[in-house]
Amino acid sequence: MIIRMRNATQLRGEILSAARTEFAQYGLAGARIDRIAKTANASKERLYAHFGDKEALFRLVAAADGAEFFNALTLRPDAVPEFVGDIFDLARKRPEHLRMMTWARLEGLLLDDPQSSGHDIPERELSAIEAAQAAGYVDARWEPMELLAMLFGIGMAWAHWPRPDDFNDDAAVVAARRAAAVEAAARIVTPRADAPSPRP
Amino acid sequence: MIIRMRNATQLRGEILSAARTEFAQYGLAGARIDRIAKTANASKERLYAHFGDKEALFRLVAAADGAEFFNALTLRPDAVPEFVGDIFDLARKRPEHLRMMTWARLEGLLLDDPQSSGHDIPERELSAIEAAQAAGYVDARWEPMELLAMLFGIGMAWAHWPRPDDFNDDAAVVAARRAAAVEAAARIVTPRADAPSPRP
Repeated sequence: MIIRMRNATQLRGEILSAARTEFAQYGLAGARIDRIAKTANASKERLYAHFGDKEALFRLVAAADGAEFFNALTLRPDAVPEFVGDIFDLARKRPEHLRMMTWARLEGLLLDDPQSSGHDIPERELSAIEAAQAAGYVDARWEPMELLAMLFGIGMAWAHWPRPDDFNDDAAVVAARRAAAVEAAARIVTPRADAPSPRP
Repeated sequence: MIIRMRNATQLRGEILSAARTEFAQYGLAGARIDRIAKTANASKERLYAHFGDKEALFRLVAAADGAEFFNALTLRPDAVPEFVGDIFDLARKRPEHLRMMTWARLEGLLLDDPQSSGHDIPERELSAIEAAQAAGYVDARWEPMELLAMLFGIGMAWAHWPRPDDFNDDAAVVAARRAAAVEAAARIVTPRADAPSPRP
């Protein structure tokens, strides 16, 4: 038998790792603290001493996952359609982060202000859209926040799609869906003299 | 004290109504059968006798809500952008249906084949998109399924938005967001001779 000595930081890290897996899979209501404790080789008592109750631990994981997810994205003013491709890729790469954010939304949990966890979402992206509009890359008639929400909507369209039958990991299918999302974003943002104003 | 006499059909209806409210709010794991039974003035035993276990009841409600949601939408070949406006409206009008479908997706539940519950989603919509392409309303270079997923992504962008701070029920804001979604869809679908092919 191997006895591992862990300091408090290591213990916290292992509990958080176990909690991340458990919460992403089962959500707040379905998660079981005893499974998390068992996976982390910790007692429930130590877990509670470190993190408080189940909801507090869930909030901690959800806020960290949300921050990690959004911080993995960078909106460059000269590459707004590619930003949608990046969203598409990230939603595929980190489905567990999306699941955490979705569980949190359904549970009605107001997570910590994103600014306090080190990222300025969505102010950073809104500034980039304004810069893109000033530089002529993006139609100036879009309201930046409305445009940003739709860019995420397009990039995550398949992540939110409700029919499991349509899920597909075939590389060619994934590439085609990604290309379609980028092309859709390009068509939306491209300044067009003839288009009716999106802000009636 | 008023004694209400209910037949089996009425009892089923009241249990389903109570289950709908409970599941939309708390999801499968968080829902409590005793709350549903109490709301419906039924015993847990009668509830189980009618519906089986909690998951069976959840599946029944989720499948019915999904069918009702999608059947409320009609994609007319000559009005594809307006279809996105309809999605936007429906997501605002029936958030509890969206919540049910999202809980079901997170729980990994494969619901009944939509065709068996009386609607042909998404075959009906895909046929309409093909008709719209044949008639010149929609760029023929879009793969219908990819386009359909993105139309839903745009129409539901705000319904999926994770920041509660950005929720807004102001009529002017809602109208502007709806108009932006319809305009975005119009820009995507409009046939354009100069645009690069979305299907590389």
